[in-house]
Amino acid sequence: MRFEYVVVGAGFAGCTIAERIANVLNKKVLIIEKRNHIGGNAYDYYNEDGILVHKYGPHIFHTNNKIVWDYLSNFTKWRLYQHRVLAYVDGKYVPFPINLDTINILYNKNFSSEDFKLFLETVRKKSEKITNSKDVVTSQIGEELYEKFFQWYTKKQWDIFPDELSPEVTARIPVRFNRDDRYFTDRYQGVPEYGYTRLFENLIDSKNIHILLNTDYKEVINEIKFEKLIYTGPIDYFFDYKYGKLPYRSIRFEFETLSCEYYQPVATVNYPNDYDFTRITEFKHITGQIHPKTTIVKEYPTSEGEPYYPIPQNENYEIYRLYEKEARMLTNIYFVGRLASYKYYNMDKVVEEALKLFEKIKFTS
Amino acid sequence: MRFEYVVVGAGFAGCTIAERIANVLNKKVLIIEKRNHIGGNAYDYYNEDGILVHKYGPHIFHTNNKIVWDYLSNFTKWRLYQHRVLAYVDGKYVPFPINLDTINILYNKNFSSEDFKLFLETVRKKSEKITNSKDVVTSQIGEELYEKFFQWYTKKQWDIFPDELSPEVTARIPVRFNRDDRYFTDRYQGVPEYGYTRLFENLIDSKNIHILLNTDYKEVINEIKFEKLIYTGPIDYFFDYKYGKLPYRSIRFEFETLSCEYYQPVATVNYPNDYDFTRITEFKHITGQIHPKTTIVKEYPTSEGEPYYPIPQNENYEIYRLYEKEARMLTNIYFVGRLASYKYYNMDKVVEEALKLFEKIKFTS
Ligand SMILES: Cc1cc2nc3c(=O)[nH]c(=O)nc-3n(C[C@H](O)[C@H](O)[C@H](O)COP(=O)(O)OP(=O)(O)OC[C@H]3O[C@@H](n4cnc5c(N)ncnc54)[C@H](O)[C@@H]3O)c2cc1C
Ligand SMILES: Cc1cc2nc3c(=O)[nH]c(=O)nc-3n(C[C@H](O)[C@H](O)[C@H](O)COP(=O)(O)OP(=O)(O)OC[C@H]3O[C@@H](n4cnc5c(N)ncnc54)[C@H](O)[C@@H]3O)c2cc1C
Repeated sequence: MRFEYVVVGAGFAGCTIAERIANVLNKKVLIIEKRNHIGGNAYDYYNEDGILVHKYGPHIFHTNNKIVWDYLSNFTKWRLYQHRVLAYVDGKYVPFPINLDTINILYNKNFSSEDFKLFLETVRKKSEKITNSKDVVTSQIGEELYEKFFQWYTKKQWDIFPDELSPEVTARIPVRFNRDDRYFTDRYQGVPEYGYTRLFENLIDSKNIHILLNTDYKEVINEIKFEKLIYTGPIDYFFDYKYGKLPYRSIRFEFETLSCEYYQPVATVNYPNDYDFTRITEFKHITGQIHPKTTIVKEYPTSEGEPYYPIPQNENYEIYRLYEKEARMLTNIYFVGRLASYKYYNMDKVVEEALKLFEKIKFTS
Repeated sequence: MRFEYVVVGAGFAGCTIAERIANVLNKKVLIIEKRNHIGGNAYDYYNEDGILVHKYGPHIFHTNNKIVWDYLSNFTKWRLYQHRVLAYVDGKYVPFPINLDTINILYNKNFSSEDFKLFLETVRKKSEKITNSKDVVTSQIGEELYEKFFQWYTKKQWDIFPDELSPEVTARIPVRFNRDDRYFTDRYQGVPEYGYTRLFENLIDSKNIHILLNTDYKEVINEIKFEKLIYTGPIDYFFDYKYGKLPYRSIRFEFETLSCEYYQPVATVNYPNDYDFTRITEFKHITGQIHPKTTIVKEYPTSEGEPYYPIPQNENYEIYRLYEKEARMLTNIYFVGRLASYKYYNMDKVVEEALKLFEKIKFTS
């Protein structure tokens, strides 16, 4: 078969780039997707009880990038959902990330912002050098809060303690001296009004886009003629693991549907210390669906399974750089997206990268 | 690309044959589907309000064929739904097909079965020869009931009066002397417990089955190498309409979601005489879904649009026979399904034909 463009992977990276090629360049694209559905890890569907769930874990769209927000708004309306997370600590539900209320509930205090700052000043560790994820946290909030909120959560999530992880893993987690209890503070936040899958359907709704599902690209790629290939799968797989396998952390999702309207007060409750799962998410809070039952999902981190989170350790990034170097030497083959970049990218970042790649491709076609 | 088998169309015909080839012969199959989804006309999905609807009109599975029922039961559980239809006639909802209650409500009588039989004996037309659809009906129930239930409904449906349609169109509609108000009396009746689309996903859930969506097979077929092709699309299109276009009747579906729990007492109400639509169907009665809102669909028959019903007139069957003759002369290309046979087949019949075709293919491969 002949297609001017072949895109491997039907997630945000693949569908964005396919949409642009089809609608701006007016060229024929074939998307090849291993799974039996489009949407990548953002795929959602109605489960057997008719409740809309996210198959690969809860996805909240949030960005400060107006270009990305406006671009996707061409393909969906938004439910202006703002994510809230509670952590279950010492038998209490407290807001997370840590804010003024978190401390006041946990320690049964009535701190003002000033008091809270002073308090942290007395407990925080004034270490000289920040070399790992533990340092990042203890230098801000001290040993005790670190233990309650981060130490064991991280251990569950990565099976590694924070002091063995590079600093950026926890670097993103803020402490708030006000009462803002939103999980994200980006300017644009929401979920597609009719779900992610519908958004993807709209993205690739073009006569120019053909979709081959249930097919690993390697099964067919040698028999397809194309001018350009855009690859959004794992970069190590592309090169037949010649420099070794890039390690990923995975998650086993355990879904449960309960015969009550709601299970918990907010969409996500973190369990840093209790049980083996890291968190429980209840989808109806996110989607706004009205239904007599409710579906929750528990997340059990594992080392086996679908590749979800690149493991943030230097030796892995070094392997990645070997692949990246090979990749750069190829002509007419482009790598974009989370798996191809071996980075934990949020959805907005992936769309941003895909739009940038399109600008590059546009001028060479 | 190379595939041992190519199947055109992902409806009941295509997915059944693909499943057998993949799982029994353990051969690789490529399904090519023009639309952006599997399931053919039986496709269902959750609409924007989260209500499960049938995109191409209400589909009830019913069969007396145990082989077909058992076969599909490997891929779905069943909701044991039995379809009921009311006709809105002279301002009253009455059971349809006509049964004892229909007559008693309509004429405000208290007939026994015997009375009903005697009554029909007095009104039915004792014509010598039955040459068209009108004759079929009036010979059973006379002019008045014919007019109330059939004349205008048929005119709406086909834009042709029954006396210009071949007898088989209305031949299937029974009169019941008991109070059985089910639309079908087949031994096995139901809908897939989690919807038709889920059933199709299960049918083609095999490493051997690859699915190319959003692609007319003619766009790619010349560049695919295959040993056998199974075609379930329109037969005239396959032969580039060389003997002319086979005419079809289509339907414009008008969906509406209402802010009430139920709209009407049963799944389907026929409107033989009022309005321009033929019937209104309310999906929740069929699917059993519990939801604060409800979605209905009105069916407006039209001559333009997707090919739904072959028009039952002799001149069309004659054209079909020309195509059929051509088709039979081809080797390694097989025609199966509703569009390829230019017949109004129910789903069970299509599965039956596909299973039979598989037995034939099996021995030549
Ligand atoms: C548990 C979890 C929660 C998350 N929550 C959020 C959130 O709340 N907000 C947020 O912004 N981001 C979130 N993310 C990140 C988000 O999922 C990613 O940013 C996004 O899915 C990346 O899109 P992508 O297209 O790069 O990759 P993917 O979505 O992974 O798509 C890649 C596609 O390529 C396919 N593929 C791979 N290999 C092959 C092959 N050999 N042949 C053919 N196809 C192949 C895959 O099947 C997949 O469909 C979350 C991620 C996880 C794991
Ligand atoms: C309004 C309505 C109500 C019905 N209700 C019932 C019911 O209650 N019970 C019942 O048993 N039956 C019902 N039927 C009949 C039922 O829909 C059919 O029996 C069944 O869908 C036929 O399956 P199929 O695979 O033969 O054809 P289809 O379901 O039509 O599938 C054929 C597929 O081929 C694809 N295709 C066509 N041309 C091409 C091409 N050139 N390239 C690639 N792909 C192509 C089409 O897009 C389609 O997906 C109903 C039909 C209609 C129209």
